Amino acid sequence: MFFKVKTTEEVLSLVKGFEPVGREEVPLSKAFGRVLCEDMVSPENLPGFLRTTVDGYAIQARDSFGATESLPAFLEIAGEVKMGELPSITAGSGRAVRISTGGMLPQGADSVVMIEYCHHLDEGTLEISRAVSPQENVIQPDDDFKAGALVLRAGQRLRPQDVGVLAGLGVTAAPVYRIPKVAIISTGDEVVPVGEKPKPGQVRDMNTYTLGAFCEQIGVAPVPMGLCGDRFDDLLALVQKGLDGADTVWVSGGSSVGTRDLTLKVFESLEDMELLVHGISISPGKPTIIARAGRRALFGLPGHVASAMVVAEIFLRPFLAALCGEADSEIKGPVRLRARLARNVESASGRDDFIRVRLVKDGEGWVAEPIFGKSGLISTLVEADGLLRVDRNTEGVYQGDMVEVMKFGV
Amino acid sequence: MFFKVKTTEEVLSLVKGFEPVGREEVPLSKAFGRVLCEDMVSPENLPGFLRTTVDGYAIQARDSFGATESLPAFLEIAGEVKMGELPSITAGSGRAVRISTGGMLPQGADSVVMIEYCHHLDEGTLEISRAVSPQENVIQPDDDFKAGALVLRAGQRLRPQDVGVLAGLGVTAAPVYRIPKVAIISTGDEVVPVGEKPKPGQVRDMNTYTLGAFCEQIGVAPVPMGLCGDRFDDLLALVQKGLDGADTVWVSGGSSVGTRDLTLKVFESLEDMELLVHGISISPGKPTIIARAGRRALFGLPGHVASAMVVAEIFLRPFLAALCGEADSEIKGPVRLRARLARNVESASGRDDFIRVRLVKDGEGWVAEPIFGKSGLISTLVEADGLLRVDRNTEGVYQGDMVEVMKFGV
Repeated sequence: MFFKVKTTEEVLSLVKGFEPVGREEVPLSKAFGRVLCEDMVSPENLPGFLRTTVDGYAIQARDSFGATESLPAFLEIAGEVKMGELPSITAGSGRAVRISTGGMLPQGADSVVMIEYCHHLDEGTLEISRAVSPQENVIQPDDDFKAGALVLRAGQRLRPQDVGVLAGLGVTAAPVYRIPKVAIISTGDEVVPVGEKPKPGQVRDMNTYTLGAFCEQIGVAPVPMGLCGDRFDDLLALVQKGLDGADTVWVSGGSSVGTRDLTLKVFESLEDMELLVHGISISPGKPTIIARAGRRALFGLPGHVASAMVVAEIFLRPFLAALCGEADSEIKGPVRLRARLARNVESASGRDDFIRVRLVKDGEGWVAEPIFGKSGLISTLVEADGLLRVDRNTEGVYQGDMVEVMKFGV
Repeated sequence: MFFKVKTTEEVLSLVKGFEPVGREEVPLSKAFGRVLCEDMVSPENLPGFLRTTVDGYAIQARDSFGATESLPAFLEIAGEVKMGELPSITAGSGRAVRISTGGMLPQGADSVVMIEYCHHLDEGTLEISRAVSPQENVIQPDDDFKAGALVLRAGQRLRPQDVGVLAGLGVTAAPVYRIPKVAIISTGDEVVPVGEKPKPGQVRDMNTYTLGAFCEQIGVAPVPMGLCGDRFDDLLALVQKGLDGADTVWVSGGSSVGTRDLTLKVFESLEDMELLVHGISISPGKPTIIARAGRRALFGLPGHVASAMVVAEIFLRPFLAALCGEADSEIKGPVRLRARLARNVESASGRDDFIRVRLVKDGEGWVAEPIFGKSGLISTLVEADGLLRVDRNTEGVYQGDMVEVMKFGV
């Protein structure tokens, strides 16, 4: 089958087209970092009652009109509001009621005079040295949210304050998208488990750990499937097991033509298989394969961990966001920092180059220092703070250019 | 006791002075996001053998010198390198050995000719149409890391690629700092549990959930201690229980003078108590209390959740980083984005104002739109994408000014 290499944008639009994997309800204490699957509407007014924002005396504002230090107003002290209770006393008509921050205003009161402007003339009489306007120093019953107001949108990943507002509205269980499961298969006759001492010609399995941690970083569940030698039947069995137990299957294989072909053959042998991508015009990461089996996506990733991580940052991140049901948003994607390029970076036209860069700060802002090195070296990735895209329509970027760096997350 | 209100910088320097809470070893599969407590040194060379980065034939470079399309070099095909195995055949002296990407070079070979420049003349003879230099298309045994090289530093929070390199070096258990436990106490006679319908004058407990999620975001363990009414004995018992079971205790209380005094009295009654901070020259968040009991820090936070979250972002984040053992680093702290201010923001001199802002992108970059609203309203925080600091030495910032916004995490 002849398959044209696809551009970054073509692949992005394909991976963003996958659907969330399901819905569930979680207790509010487990909701942080989860993605809402329904709009949340306020069932009631918040805070729900007229509330003071200061310590002082609740009064009817007009009882203070004109009051100054030299010409104070005098009010009757009618009692005190207890926190958390419906006030039994009424204010207004010359009556003032002692109240603490957060307390509910008694009937008849429309404002609060701060304690700083109140003096006891005697046990029952209050002297006020400053006028207040109606509604001064109070929060209205619907100031935070009106009953029926949209509070949070479906597709929002819940931040601490979002969890907080759900608590405020009495939401004890949050409707969220299910956490996608990612089957991770590491292939190659030369790959041995981390606990083994590699013989000459062997290397330890870095991809299962790197890609697994990448999943955790995004908030999805890695399902490590173990190592697989370069044998068709073994890989097919493992991929099928992955499809049974997970929402997507990632095979990271050696970068040789033979192992790439093996992954492709295994994908092609699956029922309902549709090959979406066979090669992307990027470097590193060109030999990436993406297929669809039913609703599930399969990825054939480069075997070199640094190349696999570039593909993960650029394509698997938005893919997983789609699987999580997360709404597309510039402010919520990976952080992009403006930086000054420290050195010229040449680039072959016709492909997007993703250059690993170190970020350092000088007096004028961030400086991006390109890290050169073979894509097979994980050290380049460990030294890097982010990626710089050099577009396929340019021949490079130059020292001193302002560039945008995709910062790696922690 | 008279206590001078402290500046942002004074408080930051105090909270950063606390020590990590302990050490442990975790399996590598649980190491993502944890903070290393020891420098990691490579115990061996990585990859450990001479490795090809391409598919092709391993040769001695000098056997290809001068080869061109019109004047190719001819070599004897000596066999094939099997992946993951020590090659039994030797190359060099006119002998070429077939090799796949990632394979180990056979003895006698110092470079690899890419398959694109190789043609079989007959079963035993290879025609090479391009010369290679020694070391071309190969990775040296110590190209990634030399035995003894510093790979990762103590204080580094492990990213996916850092976990990956530990796997590559055979580290099955990572030495990390223990995860700090944070006891969270929410006080106030007016506060009811989330599952309860508040009566007039009551509000649901938002702080336990907001601060708990904030802890999870940073990677520390919240220990919710439940609600506490405004009674000295109850609060003291709960604080002591918190000190027994956690590494730091956070009391978020009502914002009235009475409840603030209660928290202070409880802290002052503890053994070995040293009051560090009683008031910070910031808004919101001024009535913050910080004390030390032995090695442990106690915080009295504002009761209004939006104020508490500002204190959390500015002071508890670096405090927890210190408790986690995380090394101070500009690139790893909260993200700071340059943005153009959409409106004038006035500010009282003598205090740092932290303004909640929404971030939107226009043709020229990020625009910061201040969100005004009483600090008691959580809606202002839900709408915000970050915080803008207006320094105490200025009278404000102006529309069109370039400002730095601390972006909230997800």
